[in-house]
Amino acid sequence: MTQKDTLDCQAKRLKDSFRLTRVGVTGVRKPVVVHRDGKDNYLTAMIDVFVDLPSTQRGSHMSRNVEVITEMLEESVRAKVSSLEQLTANLCKKLLERHEYASFAEVQMSADYFLERRPDGGKASLEPFKLTAKATAMRGNGLMKLIGVEVQGMTACPCAMETIRHQLASKRPDIKKIPSDVPMISHNQRNRTSLIVEVPEHVEIEADDLIDIVESSLSSPTYGILKRRDEANVVLKAHENPKFVEDVVRDILGKVLRKYKKLDDSVHVTVRSESEESIHKHNAFAERVTTLGELRSK
Amino acid sequence: MTQKDTLDCQAKRLKDSFRLTRVGVTGVRKPVVVHRDGKDNYLTAMIDVFVDLPSTQRGSHMSRNVEVITEMLEESVRAKVSSLEQLTANLCKKLLERHEYASFAEVQMSADYFLERRPDGGKASLEPFKLTAKATAMRGNGLMKLIGVEVQGMTACPCAMETIRHQLASKRPDIKKIPSDVPMISHNQRNRTSLIVEVPEHVEIEADDLIDIVESSLSSPTYGILKRRDEANVVLKAHENPKFVEDVVRDILGKVLRKYKKLDDSVHVTVRSESEESIHKHNAFAERVTTLGELRSK
Amino acid sequence: MTQKDTLDCQAKRLKDSFRLTRVGVTGVRKPVVVHRDGKDNYLTAMIDVFVDLPSTQRGSHMSRNVEVITEMLEESVRAKVSSLEQLTANLCKKLLERHEYASFAEVQMSADYFLERRPDGGKASLEPFKLTAKATAMRGNGLMKLIGVEVQGMTACPCAMETIRHQLASKRPDIKKIPSDVPMISHNQRNRTSLIVEVPEHVEIEADDLIDIVESSLSSPTYGILKRRDEANVVLKAHENPKFVEDVVRDILGKVLRKYKKLDDSVHVTVRSESEESIHKHNAFAERVTTLGELRSK
Amino acid sequence: MTQKDTLDCQAKRLKDSFRLTRVGVTGVRKPVVVHRDGKDNYLTAMIDVFVDLPSTQRGSHMSRNVEVITEMLEESVRAKVSSLEQLTANLCKKLLERHEYASFAEVQMSADYFLERRPDGGKASLEPFKLTAKATAMRGNGLMKLIGVEVQGMTACPCAMETIRHQLASKRPDIKKIPSDVPMISHNQRNRTSLIVEVPEHVEIEADDLIDIVESSLSSPTYGILKRRDEANVVLKAHENPKFVEDVVRDILGKVLRKYKKLDDSVHVTVRSESEESIHKHNAFAERVTTLGELRSK
Repeated sequence: MTQKDTLDCQAKRLKDSFRLTRVGVTGVRKPVVVHRDGKDNYLTAMIDVFVDLPSTQRGSHMSRNVEVITEMLEESVRAKVSSLEQLTANLCKKLLERHEYASFAEVQMSADYFLERRPDGGKASLEPFKLTAKATAMRGNGLMKLIGVEVQGMTACPCAMETIRHQLASKRPDIKKIPSDVPMISHNQRNRTSLIVEVPEHVEIEADDLIDIVESSLSSPTYGILKRRDEANVVLKAHENPKFVEDVVRDILGKVLRKYKKLDDSVHVTVRSESEESIHKHNAFAERVTTLGELRSK
Repeated sequence: MTQKDTLDCQAKRLKDSFRLTRVGVTGVRKPVVVHRDGKDNYLTAMIDVFVDLPSTQRGSHMSRNVEVITEMLEESVRAKVSSLEQLTANLCKKLLERHEYASFAEVQMSADYFLERRPDGGKASLEPFKLTAKATAMRGNGLMKLIGVEVQGMTACPCAMETIRHQLASKRPDIKKIPSDVPMISHNQRNRTSLIVEVPEHVEIEADDLIDIVESSLSSPTYGILKRRDEANVVLKAHENPKFVEDVVRDILGKVLRKYKKLDDSVHVTVRSESEESIHKHNAFAERVTTLGELRSK
Repeated sequence: MTQKDTLDCQAKRLKDSFRLTRVGVTGVRKPVVVHRDGKDNYLTAMIDVFVDLPSTQRGSHMSRNVEVITEMLEESVRAKVSSLEQLTANLCKKLLERHEYASFAEVQMSADYFLERRPDGGKASLEPFKLTAKATAMRGNGLMKLIGVEVQGMTACPCAMETIRHQLASKRPDIKKIPSDVPMISHNQRNRTSLIVEVPEHVEIEADDLIDIVESSLSSPTYGILKRRDEANVVLKAHENPKFVEDVVRDILGKVLRKYKKLDDSVHVTVRSESEESIHKHNAFAERVTTLGELRSK
Repeated sequence: MTQKDTLDCQAKRLKDSFRLTRVGVTGVRKPVVVHRDGKDNYLTAMIDVFVDLPSTQRGSHMSRNVEVITEMLEESVRAKVSSLEQLTANLCKKLLERHEYASFAEVQMSADYFLERRPDGGKASLEPFKLTAKATAMRGNGLMKLIGVEVQGMTACPCAMETIRHQLASKRPDIKKIPSDVPMISHNQRNRTSLIVEVPEHVEIEADDLIDIVESSLSSPTYGILKRRDEANVVLKAHENPKFVEDVVRDILGKVLRKYKKLDDSVHVTVRSESEESIHKHNAFAERVTTLGELRSK
């Protein structure tokens, strides 16, 4: 045995030990470039990478993980990679090459992401969204990509609106004159909703489409700049379109079904909506974890 | 020089070095007991403690800090200490005793804290608040205590309410019939407001009074349990009482002036209010950092 | 239809909509009491509760969730509940009673928790740990409890230690004289490791036992108060016992197998260890997600 | 009064109210570009902006803040602004233009930032740092800029090292043979240190210089990629250069004095160093808040 081998503590053979599901590095922060529609997007990504470890080997070679990440970064600039999930997929494959003992690899990335938005008749501003991407690969068994978005927007409560209409009307006869199609007072609040779709490697899903689906399913999108009239419009729109978190999740599921008709039944879909309730110190939450197949057969 | 002295790296004499303003330990987590109105409050506190360090000494004796904290904990149970700020004051004095080279000591503590609240005619629940306490002492120069609270509640926007009333009325003549004293639709949201008062050691300020001042200055308090009718009442109350963050801060300042008439002009007061805007992805913020004397002379 | 029914927006019947997997409230903060070994433990808990929602009903009755939590709190004081996981189990059952339309319920709780620890020959202090508990129940199908702990301790790297011994020896012949059983310099760091066991309701697992298993599997436990000699002992102990995160996870798995011989093969076990590497800005991570049956058959 | 005036709730005149110190927006997230040394740096910034508010005006015009930020972003691309602090300075001036009633403006920005680093003989990687910038302006009274950096690195404890050398030697006579200039075992850990300098607008301070000062004052910098030999070198270097947090702060102060000889005595300097102790669950902390004048007169 050479000295180099002696020093390779990680490669040490074990008898009678345990396989490990995931071994790797977490919290790696790197700048990445995503090239899309002729435009470079510069993102600051948080990256976690893992491979499995057989029961017979003491340690995983951790430094190879960061080498692979660093090579991927250079590639992202040179080769104009088109999405965060493409980067995670490429990384996953390189991890399996470099960790010859691994049968599984997983890569997660997340980053703030900006798109221009403009309220009707108002001023444009770059609105922040959050992208998440994940790839998992079993050696020799293909690769799955997960594309996720998190969107902030506004929900107005349908229940409080109805109760208040009745309560006002019962106390004050003059209120009965309010036309019943005029939206009523309710509580409304900041909402964070995420939509995550998992597909085989060759299937392309645009994160921007996922953002559109979520943003259009809230009571109203929110905007950086709202002059007085724009503000009134956004608030009115939200109250004309009151939504429980349950409604938000279901509306997204319906849109996903219609948008991705050609995708296979096996595609996984997760939707989570959380309203930071203005009337409580806790949040309201709704979720569906499912597949397109389940959704189609309802 | 004895061996023990050799090993006391911290006590090493320095020539021509720099004084340090604060040296200590941060992020110490401990259970504490505060005895108030015949009731024991069990809190999980985060604690930071510091002393200064003269230019002639290499290191502060860090382990003494945690010894002092541990003794204080036992004392808090045995001696029924009445408040978090009393604990910080006691700690500060012990730090100066134990660090004989220090001329300054500072202790910060924060903890979740619960008080029972009940919406009119509704169900009681324990609502979470946040206490902060700080003590600072110059050797031979007395001790200052800082008592702080952070309260979550609700703000409804006065500006959107007015604009929407006009906008609805201009588009739909039938809306003109809405009596002008009926509150209108607006955006409303979770708000976090803190009130911090700094007084000499002998002055007693009840944290519960500070919580009452803040909670009563928001558009409405918020509650854990709201049945349908309670929810409507809370939302209506907030809309009958719309507030900018600026209004919240000023109302608190007014109440502080009235409540603490007997306190000295030199007492420091800080109020910060932050609304997690439902129509934006960012927050609205207002603050006043001042003294009672400044407030009195406006 | 009565007016009350009209106002029950949540109960509204839907046609052709989607089932939701989990609907509920998150981020509820409450004080709880756990009675164990004749002693009351006062904890500040973060609580999330969920039920599922059939495709035919518009909304879940959110306020019932917080009512159930509030009743449970009173019960925890009156009935001297013995663990956080027992509280989550009780809560789960009440949720299914109260949400008559639900077929599934889930409750998660987490809290800081303190145990006295004393380094050999040193001073005792209360050390902070983190408890997590989760219960899930399918109506008519029993209940699963998850008991989890998170422990902070110290890991010293075995690989750097070996490399440095060789590197020093190759550069400086006099270093060869260092006896080979003297531990060598390495990097060491704060490590956070969690152990989570999921069992049927009737099985009792002591969180304190899980904490012992994790704490004894790190290079060394860590302590609030370490006088000079204690500090040296802790550091030496860690270097005599160097561990990769992979080693930590495997040692825990071995101890779990030996400690819980009587538990069923179906019991789920998850171990995660993360070292906040002192030589990198990112962390090293290892994990095994498994069952006792898998571990036994290795 | 026109309708527009009626709707300007913010402009409403108040009698007998309170001045507010800071009113504005917090948590605005935006992509910014900083052009330096012929290279574009793409950063994701968190931005807070504030102006004061006279006692006679009800509200600040919040939407103007985000308009100003949005204009600044466009300018940062077009005009190739050279630093985050230059952006904050420009923003501050525009805020005073736009809020004609304000006498004070403040802008804070922070962002992750990357520089290439390479351990001796090892592989280069982009290492993450944190930039903070702040500008404050009194109308008609010039502008102050604050440039800050936060650097992660490694500290090895000098005290444990000495104690362990003695302890080993007293227990094992053969250990006495270890040459006294060979570094000994100690605890070492991740450290976060920040250096903040506040100067008048016309003075230029390079954030990269501040990063160099901090990084060279720790026991060792840390790196993304360390192959076995590099890892040993980094760990040895740290142990040949053991540092208390107190030492780190003082070494930085000394370098600041030497580097910025030409700066005025009135320049503010703040240094904070926090070691995430591997032997404790809490951190060790040291700080100096001072001016160049104070440091010079020691």
